[in-house]
Amino acid sequence: MPEVRIAEVRRFMVDCLVAAGAPEHAAGAHADLLLHADVTGHFSHGLNRLEFYIRDIKSGATDATATPVILKEAAATAWVDGRDALGATVANFCMDLVIRKARHAGVGWVTAKGCCHFGMAGYWALKAEREGLIGLAFTNSSPIMVPTRSRERALGTNPIGMAAPAAPGDSLVVDMATTAVAMGKIEVQIHKGEDIPEGWALGPDGKVTTDAQVAFDTGCLLPLGGSEQTCGYKGYGLSAMVEVFTTALSGAKPTHEGRSWDLADKAAPADLGQCFVAIDPGHFAPGCAESVAACLAHWRELQPMDPSLPVLVPGDKERMNAEETRRRGTVSYARAQVDKCNRVAESLGVPSLQVAS
Amino acid sequence: MPEVRIAEVRRFMVDCLVAAGAPEHAAGAHADLLLHADVTGHFSHGLNRLEFYIRDIKSGATDATATPVILKEAAATAWVDGRDALGATVANFCMDLVIRKARHAGVGWVTAKGCCHFGMAGYWALKAEREGLIGLAFTNSSPIMVPTRSRERALGTNPIGMAAPAAPGDSLVVDMATTAVAMGKIEVQIHKGEDIPEGWALGPDGKVTTDAQVAFDTGCLLPLGGSEQTCGYKGYGLSAMVEVFTTALSGAKPTHEGRSWDLADKAAPADLGQCFVAIDPGHFAPGCAESVAACLAHWRELQPMDPSLPVLVPGDKERMNAEETRRRGTVSYARAQVDKCNRVAESLGVPSLQVAS
Repeated sequence: MPEVRIAEVRRFMVDCLVAAGAPEHAAGAHADLLLHADVTGHFSHGLNRLEFYIRDIKSGATDATATPVILKEAAATAWVDGRDALGATVANFCMDLVIRKARHAGVGWVTAKGCCHFGMAGYWALKAEREGLIGLAFTNSSPIMVPTRSRERALGTNPIGMAAPAAPGDSLVVDMATTAVAMGKIEVQIHKGEDIPEGWALGPDGKVTTDAQVAFDTGCLLPLGGSEQTCGYKGYGLSAMVEVFTTALSGAKPTHEGRSWDLADKAAPADLGQCFVAIDPGHFAPGCAESVAACLAHWRELQPMDPSLPVLVPGDKERMNAEETRRRGTVSYARAQVDKCNRVAESLGVPSLQVAS
Repeated sequence: MPEVRIAEVRRFMVDCLVAAGAPEHAAGAHADLLLHADVTGHFSHGLNRLEFYIRDIKSGATDATATPVILKEAAATAWVDGRDALGATVANFCMDLVIRKARHAGVGWVTAKGCCHFGMAGYWALKAEREGLIGLAFTNSSPIMVPTRSRERALGTNPIGMAAPAAPGDSLVVDMATTAVAMGKIEVQIHKGEDIPEGWALGPDGKVTTDAQVAFDTGCLLPLGGSEQTCGYKGYGLSAMVEVFTTALSGAKPTHEGRSWDLADKAAPADLGQCFVAIDPGHFAPGCAESVAACLAHWRELQPMDPSLPVLVPGDKERMNAEETRRRGTVSYARAQVDKCNRVAESLGVPSLQVAS
């Protein structure tokens, strides 16, 4: 697979976003978000999504020059209008706000309407973690999940991101769609030409499919847990909880009225709802980061079922991927991915993505 | 199955708790908690658990006369010592506190160490919901979950309870173990003499078992999602998140150092950690309860896969069970359950459970 130097990936993303109309600073922040996904191995949320963000800027669905505004505020909370700004612009604004509130009130809880996609939820939770706080980030998304017993989709992948500091320099990072998988994971299987496992998605007949292209075209993801018999109603419940935090508390459109995930309705703003939380452990029992570290150490040393597969803690896989990527200095992309990027670059008049090897 | 009048179930629970040493008021609050589980159809967390609570009071592991104390406080947060009081005593104290804080600061976040089992997490979230707030409740529990790839247990069922008001008079209630199921569900299968489905628990050989008694004796539950291939690492991640909220933030013992679920170590206090949150929608976008109601209405009207199984929203099954129980006026228990209760009653010198029919 083609290898691209990390700095070149970022250069390419920034150039494309700026050419599409984003200010340099906003483009840089958004590129950092997408780069984090590729560096940690979540290719579904990185360069793979660049075209999607650019299409939204060019159609006017995203206003890349906008800045968010606070509509209502209390000691620990705020209600924000994201004004259709770039995902990273709104999320940075809101995370800065909850971090400030958590320092004073112990916890900060902010909801925002008028949002565009903010990429990996865990990336935003990590922004609080780097400040020594526990971070949480939630977003709704396009209607793509089929609630338990339903033939029709009504909820999004509605992810939960959470990060907690662990002394010294370690962390716990949970970042998960409340569907069995995110749609990007199905796209990656298409790029690889591979099937998907059972329990990820339904076909047009309302039955489980293992064909990645059929799953992509149908766009009906199962909740975490799968069918009712295997506790899929729990994933549905988590998605419903995220729906309340992100849309009902922010005044954003409910997911079932939201824009289709396949962008049939290109020009309409997404009007997603998002929710950001920071908790300052300094306001609770002393030694939180040491307690988290003790848990991580204990879990990593548990006797594995298969000696060749050690027990990991949530976030370890991403940390190992990032270390490996930084050591190598390059990110590997499928040839089809590079070709797609260069078609986008050509249309924007931007220098193409330079492949290192 | 024997039917017992609702008021008689409560009378019996209160009498037993008082005879074991609980003050009348604390016994009543704890009986209400257990009764709610049976009335809503969660028999694993109701009368079925009474003997367990009584054993802890008699051994001194629970101090039924204790009241919790605040150790640290900020505008939106508090850190509490539960002082091994009855579960309902600590949870009522903490929920009253977060409700008060949410009214002023927008959100309230409280953690407590020194806790005993607080029953169904959703019951505590509903206490905030009845006040027009969104409620959340979390607890760690005895080490019983096997993290992904591990042969050894290290986390608890670590449940998440969440309730949100929906206008008028409706609600969304999510109440779920982050394991595939809670241990009580396996006990219920034993009482019924039925097998458990695959993906709930491991046997002593480290392989999935369908034998309820083997699963109970082994005590190794799988996380929500099951194996690594079916995304069980997401259930593990959620359980780890709850672990941080409940033990690291409260100073309670980490679950892996906690008391065994089979009570081998009877006299030691549980020292569980708990976390309670309330969010006042009045501090965010107007019309939150109406937005939640619109979602509930939409989800209930989705076209079902099987016309005989309508789509439910999280909390509907419990609501329907409660309506049916109240209409009938009685709760149905297995004969073995009634017999077990009456052995407990005899040992406490309490009038036996009067069966109505």
